[in-house]
Amino acid sequence: MSNWNESADIIFKNGVIFNPFTCEWQDEPFAVRNGKIIGVGSGYRGKKEIDLRSKYVLPGFIDAHVHIESSLLTPHEYARVVMKHGTTSVIADPHEIANVCGTAGIDYMIQANQDLPLDILVMLPSCVPATPIDECANTLTAEILHPYISREGVIGLGEMMNVPGVLERNPDVMQKISLTEIKDGHAPFITGTMLDQYIASGMQSDHETTVIAEGKEKLQKGMYLFIREGSTERNLNTLIPLVTACNSSRCCFCTDDRHADMLVTTGHIDDCIRKAIGQGCEPELAYKMATLSAAERFRLSDRGAISPGRIADFCVVDDINECNVRTVYKKGIDISTSDFTSAPSSLIRECPFNAKIPTPSEIRISGEGIARVIKIQEGQIGTVTGYIPLSSEDIPDTKRDILKIVVASRYYPKHIGVGLIQGLGLKRGALASSVSHDSHNIIAAGTSDEEIIASIASVVKHRGAMVACSGNDEVILPLSFAGLMSELSFEKVHEALKGLHNMTSSCGAIHDPFMYLSFMALSVIPEIRITTKGIFDVNKFSHVPLFVEKTESE
Amino acid sequence: MSNWNESADIIFKNGVIFNPFTCEWQDEPFAVRNGKIIGVGSGYRGKKEIDLRSKYVLPGFIDAHVHIESSLLTPHEYARVVMKHGTTSVIADPHEIANVCGTAGIDYMIQANQDLPLDILVMLPSCVPATPIDECANTLTAEILHPYISREGVIGLGEMMNVPGVLERNPDVMQKISLTEIKDGHAPFITGTMLDQYIASGMQSDHETTVIAEGKEKLQKGMYLFIREGSTERNLNTLIPLVTACNSSRCCFCTDDRHADMLVTTGHIDDCIRKAIGQGCEPELAYKMATLSAAERFRLSDRGAISPGRIADFCVVDDINECNVRTVYKKGIDISTSDFTSAPSSLIRECPFNAKIPTPSEIRISGEGIARVIKIQEGQIGTVTGYIPLSSEDIPDTKRDILKIVVASRYYPKHIGVGLIQGLGLKRGALASSVSHDSHNIIAAGTSDEEIIASIASVVKHRGAMVACSGNDEVILPLSFAGLMSELSFEKVHEALKGLHNMTSSCGAIHDPFMYLSFMALSVIPEIRITTKGIFDVNKFSHVPLFVEKTESE
Repeated sequence: MSNWNESADIIFKNGVIFNPFTCEWQDEPFAVRNGKIIGVGSGYRGKKEIDLRSKYVLPGFIDAHVHIESSLLTPHEYARVVMKHGTTSVIADPHEIANVCGTAGIDYMIQANQDLPLDILVMLPSCVPATPIDECANTLTAEILHPYISREGVIGLGEMMNVPGVLERNPDVMQKISLTEIKDGHAPFITGTMLDQYIASGMQSDHETTVIAEGKEKLQKGMYLFIREGSTERNLNTLIPLVTACNSSRCCFCTDDRHADMLVTTGHIDDCIRKAIGQGCEPELAYKMATLSAAERFRLSDRGAISPGRIADFCVVDDINECNVRTVYKKGIDISTSDFTSAPSSLIRECPFNAKIPTPSEIRISGEGIARVIKIQEGQIGTVTGYIPLSSEDIPDTKRDILKIVVASRYYPKHIGVGLIQGLGLKRGALASSVSHDSHNIIAAGTSDEEIIASIASVVKHRGAMVACSGNDEVILPLSFAGLMSELSFEKVHEALKGLHNMTSSCGAIHDPFMYLSFMALSVIPEIRITTKGIFDVNKFSHVPLFVEKTESE
Repeated sequence: MSNWNESADIIFKNGVIFNPFTCEWQDEPFAVRNGKIIGVGSGYRGKKEIDLRSKYVLPGFIDAHVHIESSLLTPHEYARVVMKHGTTSVIADPHEIANVCGTAGIDYMIQANQDLPLDILVMLPSCVPATPIDECANTLTAEILHPYISREGVIGLGEMMNVPGVLERNPDVMQKISLTEIKDGHAPFITGTMLDQYIASGMQSDHETTVIAEGKEKLQKGMYLFIREGSTERNLNTLIPLVTACNSSRCCFCTDDRHADMLVTTGHIDDCIRKAIGQGCEPELAYKMATLSAAERFRLSDRGAISPGRIADFCVVDDINECNVRTVYKKGIDISTSDFTSAPSSLIRECPFNAKIPTPSEIRISGEGIARVIKIQEGQIGTVTGYIPLSSEDIPDTKRDILKIVVASRYYPKHIGVGLIQGLGLKRGALASSVSHDSHNIIAAGTSDEEIIASIASVVKHRGAMVACSGNDEVILPLSFAGLMSELSFEKVHEALKGLHNMTSSCGAIHDPFMYLSFMALSVIPEIRITTKGIFDVNKFSHVPLFVEKTESE
């Protein structure tokens, strides 16, 4: 009847395959040819046979939503670390690098996808800048994004954080929404009729859910729920109880922002799986969410399962509950033999970095009264306002833990914002970073103006870095790629982060102060922020003075 | 923050809504505006309120695979009957009408979708003619189909029955497969490495599964399983045990070929739901398969659930297990107020109907020996070959129930095929029909050449009909639309079918002889068929003589 070809490059035998279509484990060999699964079951002859020795075989894991730049690693180092953990595809929203480099940042990620074994599928960054009040290299309008929709590896519109823009039907937002079929949402604390309208506008997913009732409502109303476990936002334990066999095709795992140290010490999507199972999730549902559910959400019918016609992306684990990844195959090739180098990119070194080192007078606070102080909330990135009576001469106040915080623009050298922050814990020294979501201006806080300025100067000198200094001591992790990513290996970045944290710890800081600092300028997250123009009230969506004016009510 | 609109056209309250995302029943009101669900839950004001009085609300049902023409009804009568049963969308493959009318048949269905409340989403007929040996109005190549891919309402490539063409990578087949993202398969008894290759070529679904192990294998290998319950093929009871919560998003219901009488007496997708629940399927899984699973398979993100942004298609039932549909809404409008007329279509009356009434000499059999007799298998459309010693003078042999069967081409008047059939049961008279899958030539069988010729003559006179005659008695259902569909109401067609069946019954025939007759020329279904060129051996894929030649082995 036909003369189809039953000869394979490799037969993988004696493995126990996870089948996410049926949530079963199958004792079957499978055949790979030219990087694809050609068949599951007996009947194939292979040039080569690999004995999987009764180990478990999973389809390659998929991260449903990630900002690679937040790892502090270049895409090739990122690929090298996450692939060891069984991840073969990530859905990346490059809005960090798009903010600082414009479309060159998108090109960079598209190129990385071409060069690397990891599949980096790009969602077009929909909110650059994050809000109208934010600075960036170039406003990415619908018109500017349009040519990217047909680029290879571009699969949809990235997290639409501009909830008001959606609800008010802002023309540019509406145009962006119409660019692609696949559209990710971003809807923290959005519920009820507001959620209805946000969904009706076309937003299909959410990864910002931190409360179980909200997750339930979003699932019920037809959103895909991306269960997030990042360095900063740990939502998995809260949301996992929602997952059932019925809704498992609508739930995925994502890491959003996960730094190099967490990738090294706990892993990637394998970590999410392990945690989910540890929290009582059926292993089959966890593995399904990590594979087929994400593939189906993004209409990637060529992956997410070990089945005929799909890419031969899979990993081998010893123990289902431990999810201890031993070997990883991408297109049928063992990645331990893969090349993770990227072509050198001059694009990124050419990203704007026009930051100026502030002078003491440019960061001086004067006056007294009730100050609006940014209060850190431990374990999350939301802030509340502390209305604290003080005088500028009191600052720094290490007893009440109130320090100066400064944002120096990397785009417009004269733009410098100054405020106050409580909760960092620092007793001496200063820290500065060029990772400051989403505009990635330089942000710094410290116990003296001299040290604040010195730490900023180090960032400027390296065209991007994370710096901790105290007196003559300084620890620095340069981030020479766009001020966001280190050119070091992931092992070295891990070590450098440990060094930075040891330094800040020894200066009295809370755990991971850079993480909190990196969100202090993020104008979309309530309630109070610091930008290059000063203190920003998120709920009023306007800048406000440092000191409460006497005519204002409190 | 925004000024979104909470005013609805209608608030539907006091209903219990089925949620297919989570398989839950929700006690919530919902709001409709401009034909869409704008929200679920309180918070909306409506110009009008409808009290659902504690009844159950389901999303409108979706038939995942159907040939509307097989109902014997025009699309508007078809819509009128199935919508009463809760169906609001069907995925239609118009290959029957495309065989007889060419692309005018596809245009007809596309137009019907525009005119009618029922959404008729069209899959492009991929195998017209069904095989190279079949006749039709016009061969529909990939090139001819190509302009249709962007037509409104066209959503994919219809069932690819040419399994050998797929496996041998026939160029026209490969071109067709590349036309659309969505591609339905047709893979009866295809398993193992052959199935692997068929799936790897891009075939995503199957509705031809009659054996549970085969259904399990297809699900495991990533095919969507369409559980079919038609007039002829009743596969639901066999396959329903396969359905689990985990795989329910991969399973749908379809009717394929369901005649008007079955639609009237037992229903449509509601019938499938009712039967599934009766067989032990969880109601929630049955309702999910009938709604969201089909919507997701076909990437119809605007339907399949009662959730914000989706079309307000839903039905109201009294009892979950009975699925007794009381009211049906399409785009928020009660269909009992809808208009089911279609614009008159001259296209169809212009379809070729060049059949000639055969002369007695043209249908004469002469000779003797071992005859290849087509043996009907009760309850299915497959046939086996009876090797029966006989002489042409024995025919008709009502004792051994061996009758003459004739196919007269509607395309080429000189093409007439003659054979023998066992199992119809007819003791006197003849029957003829212009419904004869897939070429829809005239097919007839009977107990005398005169009556065979008379019944064919009636079909020709009406340019299509189903006819039963015996002596001077004749019962006829004209099928004036392309020789496939009646212009009568579904109620009248139901009555006419009863009349035909009473007639054939009284002549001794088995139950529903027209149904078996309609598949006797279908050259893709094993094992033996009759075409305009004579006896056809499906497995050898070639015509063979009526009498076994003395040199052949048996």
